[in-house]
Amino acid sequence: MVHTLVPSDCVESAVVYDRDGRKIGAIERLMLEKKAGTVAYAVVKSGGFFKGDVHHYPVPWNSLKYNVGRRAYEMDLTLEELHGGPSEPEFDWGDRSLLSQYPQYWIL
Amino acid sequence: MVHTLVPSDCVESAVVYDRDGRKIGAIERLMLEKKAGTVAYAVVKSGGFFKGDVHHYPVPWNSLKYNVGRRAYEMDLTLEELHGGPSEPEFDWGDRSLLSQYPQYWIL
Repeated sequence: MVHTLVPSDCVESAVVYDRDGRKIGAIERLMLEKKAGTVAYAVVKSGGFFKGDVHHYPVPWNSLKYNVGRRAYEMDLTLEELHGGPSEPEFDWGDRSLLSQYPQYWIL
Repeated sequence: MVHTLVPSDCVESAVVYDRDGRKIGAIERLMLEKKAGTVAYAVVKSGGFFKGDVHHYPVPWNSLKYNVGRRAYEMDLTLEELHGGPSEPEFDWGDRSLLSQYPQYWIL
């Protein structure tokens, strides 16, 4: 049978490719709505070859589709689109008031 | 401001107390609905002093309330109620057809 559930620690370690097929990085953690228990977004860690080269991007859960053959998530965004959105460290990851500023990254 | 979001890796390491105030164990992982991105339940690991003494219990997200002062989750179930429900290893953690068998553990 096909399971409809996935363990959070499997998601957290998964590799992410962008819409153009480029390897972006990996999911570092999920940000959850405390009350509703829904995934607000995944935090995707990118880069890391050099110090200061690491970026963290919020990616909506519904932008991520798991490819079983590839054993990785495919994102319906490009790296350039991520660059245009919020990123660490200036971004307050828990502040939902930024919804209006970056609407495309917060569609649940 | 009070954040409405919580990182998955913080949840995973959190201690859990039961309704009677007893320390049950800790959250090991969350099981997520792949499509909807909602937490189906938390897997609570209990015991572990002796080999064979470890149990894993599914606990619905809405049964867990975070107590900021205690820095832990409080469960609205008792350990005895958990014992009456599904547990590892006979339990197929991804099989939602067990819903009818253990209805109280699967209320989302």
